[in-house]
Amino acid sequence: MVNQQMAALGSSRSTIRELFEYGNSRAAVVGRENVFDFSLGNPSVPAPDAVRQAIMQEAAGDPVALHGYTSAQGAADVRQALAADLNARFGTDYTGDSLYLTAGAAAALSCAFNALACPGDEFIVFAPYFPEYKMFIESGAGAKCVVVPPSAADLQIDFDALAQALNERTKAVVVNSPNNPSGVVYSEQTLDRLTALLRERAQAYGHPIYLISDEPYREIVYEGAQVPFLPCRYADTVVCYSYSKSLSLPGERIGYVLVPPQAADSAALYAAVCGAGRALGYVCAPSLFQRVAARCVGVSGDVAAYQANRDLLYDGLTAMGYRCVKPQGAFYLFPQTLEADDRAFCARAKGYDLLVVPGADFRMPGHMRISYCVATDTIRRALPLFEQLARDYGVIS
Amino acid sequence: MVNQQMAALGSSRSTIRELFEYGNSRAAVVGRENVFDFSLGNPSVPAPDAVRQAIMQEAAGDPVALHGYTSAQGAADVRQALAADLNARFGTDYTGDSLYLTAGAAAALSCAFNALACPGDEFIVFAPYFPEYKMFIESGAGAKCVVVPPSAADLQIDFDALAQALNERTKAVVVNSPNNPSGVVYSEQTLDRLTALLRERAQAYGHPIYLISDEPYREIVYEGAQVPFLPCRYADTVVCYSYSKSLSLPGERIGYVLVPPQAADSAALYAAVCGAGRALGYVCAPSLFQRVAARCVGVSGDVAAYQANRDLLYDGLTAMGYRCVKPQGAFYLFPQTLEADDRAFCARAKGYDLLVVPGADFRMPGHMRISYCVATDTIRRALPLFEQLARDYGVIS
Repeated sequence: MVNQQMAALGSSRSTIRELFEYGNSRAAVVGRENVFDFSLGNPSVPAPDAVRQAIMQEAAGDPVALHGYTSAQGAADVRQALAADLNARFGTDYTGDSLYLTAGAAAALSCAFNALACPGDEFIVFAPYFPEYKMFIESGAGAKCVVVPPSAADLQIDFDALAQALNERTKAVVVNSPNNPSGVVYSEQTLDRLTALLRERAQAYGHPIYLISDEPYREIVYEGAQVPFLPCRYADTVVCYSYSKSLSLPGERIGYVLVPPQAADSAALYAAVCGAGRALGYVCAPSLFQRVAARCVGVSGDVAAYQANRDLLYDGLTAMGYRCVKPQGAFYLFPQTLEADDRAFCARAKGYDLLVVPGADFRMPGHMRISYCVATDTIRRALPLFEQLARDYGVIS
Repeated sequence: MVNQQMAALGSSRSTIRELFEYGNSRAAVVGRENVFDFSLGNPSVPAPDAVRQAIMQEAAGDPVALHGYTSAQGAADVRQALAADLNARFGTDYTGDSLYLTAGAAAALSCAFNALACPGDEFIVFAPYFPEYKMFIESGAGAKCVVVPPSAADLQIDFDALAQALNERTKAVVVNSPNNPSGVVYSEQTLDRLTALLRERAQAYGHPIYLISDEPYREIVYEGAQVPFLPCRYADTVVCYSYSKSLSLPGERIGYVLVPPQAADSAALYAAVCGAGRALGYVCAPSLFQRVAARCVGVSGDVAAYQANRDLLYDGLTAMGYRCVKPQGAFYLFPQTLEADDRAFCARAKGYDLLVVPGADFRMPGHMRISYCVATDTIRRALPLFEQLARDYGVIS
């Protein structure tokens, strides 16, 4: 009697959510401190104090204005403030009319996919990738999700594979740098090759190929790594942003879609993003946190804490014999598992209450994602368990 | 290059949103106080002070816990608190596992429609109705929206029309009492006849017919009017609730779907609601306002202020010759327009900066919706303009 596809989606959940719920129930049994939950990308760095101040200041004001409906695109002054910030950082000339505020990046992506997808369209994503992409593209927008494997050595783009995957039905290519689950930041060289190839193919096919830049981790980079702003390099770019990670607000659901005026068909595309938000039931992004985002322009969480975690975990694991591309951003490590069957490996890790996500969930088996957005002490206490695991596998003796 | 259906939805917007945006731009020209914006259901009664206190208390706590992802269904303790409140009020025996917290009623309805809709399904809605229903059902969930006209005299259900509309493809019937746009509360008698008819037909067709009770206005009723709790009268009921109106938080997007364990296929249906939320990109309901809702259990806004507005407006307009069913709830009046062409009438009203929504938008031409969730003084100053309009039409001289 109910929609079976939806029931299946709701029963299966993502492995990540499943592990997270398991971690919660396991904590009730063995104590929270004895569960090493590396499953979820829930920022461990607290929201900057500016967030608390912004909430307090807004809450002291007129509740009717604060909690009322905003325009569907978001409050005009908030959009203007965010556009001004982008302009100051990237030398662009956006107005608030290029921004559509959303309930986080998942909503932003859903709106972008639904706005672009026409019957028969294909969207290309690069493995390893955030597992909900495929669902948003296929179950949500009714288009086809085409997965392109990465270059194995550095997890940048495998351009031969991409060249084969592109075809006349390609509507857009999704880029996620810094990457979830690998933490890899695409190099200038990678982006130059990517945009050159897309331009060439767009011309050959006689229609634009959009680049959808999913960049919630833009601000979380280490040792001065640069994340180039894609709309400045490729006109037909749509940016999906979230404050979940930069302001540590994942539960509050606040982010945006940017449709630059330079993008092909930008007026129609912006309208379609608004229409998709409407059809999906979004109404408007949460109003208090719209205002918080505007007040916190230029603020971000304590990236140094994540870097300390990365160093401790990366150095510790590689010293034990785990192999891993060193990430320059986000808060994930994506090492190879110690046996080819990553699900078996992760199940074995679970026996030590080490909760890590199989790479297969990101369409890259033989790996595991370790979210290191946890207390540094958790990593410190987990390392001997990872070591024991390596010993079980005979990697160290 | 973009999805034309989405672009059309985004370009057209709802008339209500359109009027709201027009009111904003018009206010910049003639001054906010000279625009009589009765377009939007944006509560004028401020959120109760308990909301501000709850925000302050939560914001003073641990930001990692407060702003982190919750379970997709909502924080377990919040769901438990809301279930306990329902149990205390309605004598039910729900646990938190029957609740799925959402980003407001629009999200709740979208999840319910997507969870239930199978190919070929029909959903019945009663005119006059919230115009986004049709879009959520058709553009969102891919099902068919069947509109049943009301009994003209009292805007209760026309049972002959309903009996004709019901058929083997009917998946669910949507009830919205107190009603937007008419403010009418369905009587006990109406509900008894409705549930008896649905039971009879469900048995005849050999499958359940769900009742979807969209009840954001449950708490906004006058003179002791009762809003019966439908799950206690009809087992196969799904409740979609929002705090937008009762706590005056429409911009914050917080509400829930209740799938009672007594409903047919309730486990699969609950899973499908979760799956729909996932496919639509919802992730979780805004976390701070989940907690605010739990802290404000039993609290609601100042209904007396709305009643004062209703009385002033209803008495004023009917004295001028406008005809109107007297509403017992919500904050809308739905009088007949003074000419059959309600769009022409509303356009003429716009000339006086009276912004009212044509009944045609709610599939009931010849009427207008007046949202009286405004300052009482706005109504007082608007009445002479409504009077002038009645004079223009020769209703009064």
